[in-house]
Amino acid sequence: MNSVGLVTARSMHFNDPLTLQSGAVIGDYTLIYETYGELNADKSNAVLICHALNASHHVAGYYADQPQNIGWWDNMVGPGKPVDTTRFFVIGINNIGSCFGSTGPMHTNPATGKPYGHHFPLVTVEDWVRAQSLLADKLGIYRFAAVMGGSLGGMQALAWSMMFPERLAHCVAIASTAKLTAQNIAFNDVARQAILTDPDFHEGHFYEHGVVPVNGLRVARMIGHITYLSNTDMSEKFGRELRMGQYQFGFGVEFEIESYLHYQGEKFSSYFDANTYLLITRALDYFDPAAPYGGDLTRAFANAQSAFLLVSFTTDWRFPPESTRAIVQALINNRRQISCAEIDAPHGHDAFLLDDKRYHDLIRAYFDRIWFDTFKREAS
Amino acid sequence: MNSVGLVTARSMHFNDPLTLQSGAVIGDYTLIYETYGELNADKSNAVLICHALNASHHVAGYYADQPQNIGWWDNMVGPGKPVDTTRFFVIGINNIGSCFGSTGPMHTNPATGKPYGHHFPLVTVEDWVRAQSLLADKLGIYRFAAVMGGSLGGMQALAWSMMFPERLAHCVAIASTAKLTAQNIAFNDVARQAILTDPDFHEGHFYEHGVVPVNGLRVARMIGHITYLSNTDMSEKFGRELRMGQYQFGFGVEFEIESYLHYQGEKFSSYFDANTYLLITRALDYFDPAAPYGGDLTRAFANAQSAFLLVSFTTDWRFPPESTRAIVQALINNRRQISCAEIDAPHGHDAFLLDDKRYHDLIRAYFDRIWFDTFKREAS
Repeated sequence: MNSVGLVTARSMHFNDPLTLQSGAVIGDYTLIYETYGELNADKSNAVLICHALNASHHVAGYYADQPQNIGWWDNMVGPGKPVDTTRFFVIGINNIGSCFGSTGPMHTNPATGKPYGHHFPLVTVEDWVRAQSLLADKLGIYRFAAVMGGSLGGMQALAWSMMFPERLAHCVAIASTAKLTAQNIAFNDVARQAILTDPDFHEGHFYEHGVVPVNGLRVARMIGHITYLSNTDMSEKFGRELRMGQYQFGFGVEFEIESYLHYQGEKFSSYFDANTYLLITRALDYFDPAAPYGGDLTRAFANAQSAFLLVSFTTDWRFPPESTRAIVQALINNRRQISCAEIDAPHGHDAFLLDDKRYHDLIRAYFDRIWFDTFKREAS
Repeated sequence: MNSVGLVTARSMHFNDPLTLQSGAVIGDYTLIYETYGELNADKSNAVLICHALNASHHVAGYYADQPQNIGWWDNMVGPGKPVDTTRFFVIGINNIGSCFGSTGPMHTNPATGKPYGHHFPLVTVEDWVRAQSLLADKLGIYRFAAVMGGSLGGMQALAWSMMFPERLAHCVAIASTAKLTAQNIAFNDVARQAILTDPDFHEGHFYEHGVVPVNGLRVARMIGHITYLSNTDMSEKFGRELRMGQYQFGFGVEFEIESYLHYQGEKFSSYFDANTYLLITRALDYFDPAAPYGGDLTRAFANAQSAFLLVSFTTDWRFPPESTRAIVQALINNRRQISCAEIDAPHGHDAFLLDDKRYHDLIRAYFDRIWFDTFKREAS
C-alpha cells in the first residue's frame, strides 16, 4: 500500500567526457536512474535522492520481473509517504562506479576492450554530484526542491549545497558527516584489505578469471554491518543467543549473531562488486570539503544558499550526532536556515533506512513545509 | 630502571591428563611460566598474572638473548613498581593453547605424530584457571595474595574467585567483563572468518604446508586493533593525516591510520599462530560464568571469598565501564569487599597496558594495602 508501484529503470548516455577530481577522464558514460511522481510545468518540484554505499537508483517501488525487489527507501518515498510522490517528482540515481547499471568497473574499458576492473578511475563525492548535475541538465531541471540522502548519500546532498548553491532549495542530510574519522577510515581500510588480499581478487581483474572474491567481500560486509548496528540494538536482537542451545566447542556458528553476520556477508557477496566496494569506500574516506579551507567547515559552506535539514541518531556510532553538530555549527556560522534533530532511536546508523515514527514524522513535516511554503503559496 | 632485569622462562610438565570443559582430554602437557621476586617462607606473597589475547608468561624483564623483548606488563611489575617484586613473588603463566611455549596447536599431537593444528581441543577460561591451579600446586602455593589480569586476563582472575574462592586473597580484574556482548562476539567472528577463509589456513594444518595464513591473521589483527583504541585517541593520534600530503587516488596507503594498522597487522602475522587466535577468541566468546545461573551474576559470585579491585577506563568501548559496573553490582549483592575505579583515560581498551599515572597510583595503593594489611601486620 502507498507504494509507487511498478517502476522501470531509465538510462541516460553522456557522450561528452567527464574529467574527474583525480584528473582521470571517463570518455563517455551512462547513468541509470528512476523517477516517481510527475514533474510539474515549471520543473520546480524535483527531489533528488542520492544513494549510500550498497544502494542504487532503485529507491521505491518494484520491477515487473522482480516483484520482491522493493526500492531501498520505499518506506520514505511514495504517495502519502514522507516524501510524497503525489507532490514531488522524485529521482533516484545510480552513481558512476557502482555495480547497478551506471558505468562502472565491470563495464568495458574502451581503451582495452576488457572490463575496467581495477583500472576504473577513482571517483569522489564531488564527481558524483557533477555527474548528477549533468543528468539534471538533460532532464531540464535547473533547481531541485530538495537534494536528499542518508550516510554517503547525505554527503552528496551536502556537496550539492556547496558546489551548486543555487540549484537546490533544500539540502536534507541524514546520519551523515562532513568527514570520516580515523576510526571510520580504519574500518574501511580493513574491509578493503580483506578484498585486496583475497586470491580471487586477481588485482581487480577477477571477471576475466570467472571468479569473485567472495571471502573478501564477505568479511568486508561483516565488518561494515557491525558498524551499521548499535551495540544496544545488537544486544537486544541477538545477545548471547546460541544456535544449538549449548556450546559445540568448535568454530562453526555458535551464536545467533554469527549466523546473522554470515548470512549478511554471503548475501552481499552474491550481488555486490568488489571493485565497486573499494571505490565507494575510498570516496567515503576522501570526502572532506573543509580540507581546502584548512579544515574550516564554516568557510566550506560560505557559498551555500539552500535551507538545510540535518538529522542524526543517538545510537549511530558510525556517524554520531557530533558529526552532524559540526555541520550545524558551520551552517549557523553562515547564518543559513537550518532545521535539525537528534533522534533517540535504538537502531544505530541503519536507523536512517528504518521507519521510526518520530523520524518519518519529521521528514514528512519538513517536506510538507517545502510544499506549502513554495508551491501552495505560489498557487494561491 | 626498576626492571626485574634478566629473566628466564621456566617449564613445568604435567603427566596427568587434563579433562577440559568440552569433554576433550589433553593427555599430558607443559606450562611455561616466569617468576619475579622471592617466594616468602609461608608462600603467602605470590601474585599470579594472567595474560590476555596476544600476550604470554613474559610479563616483565628481558631475556639474555633478546634484550629488546621486554615483558608485556613491565611497567606494572618490578622492584618499586605498582606490583612490587621486592615484596611479592610474581608469576607470569602462559596458557594452554597459546603459541608461546605451553602446549598448543603447533605441538605434536601424540595421537597422530603431527602438529595438533585445528585438532587442538577448545579450551575455556575455566580450563586455563584449572591448569594454573595445578601449576600452583606444583609450586606449593595454596593461596595467592592476588590473582590479577587485564581484559581476558581479568576474566581469569574473576574465574579464580569463583572456582577456587579460598585460594586467593585478592582478585584484580582490569578492563574486563563477565561476558562478551553480541558486538564483541561479532568482531571476534569476523576476525576468525578472515583466518578460516584464508586459503593458506588449510583447515588449520598449514604447518604441514609450510605456509602461514598471513592475510587472514593480518585482517584479524587490524579488526582487533581498532577495537583496542578509542575513537578519540585514534583521532588525536592519526586524524586524517595523509601519507603523501595529498590524495593519490588509489588503494595503497593514503592515510597514516592505514599505515599504522598495516604495520600492526604485519607484525602480528609474523609471530602469532592462527590456530591460537581462533582458540583464544573462542575462549573470550564462551566466558559467561552467570550462564549456569540463568544469567544471574550475583549467584555466580555467591561463593567468592576474596576481596576485589575492579578497574575500567572511560574510553574503553570494547569492555566499557558498564561491564565492570555489572560485576561490581553482583559483588555488592554478595557483600564482598570491593574497591573499584573508572579511570578517565583516553586510550581505550589498551589503557590497561599503559602507565597512566592515576591508574598506576591506584594499583600501587591497592598492593601497598595488601602488603601492609597482610604482611606487615603479621610481622609486627
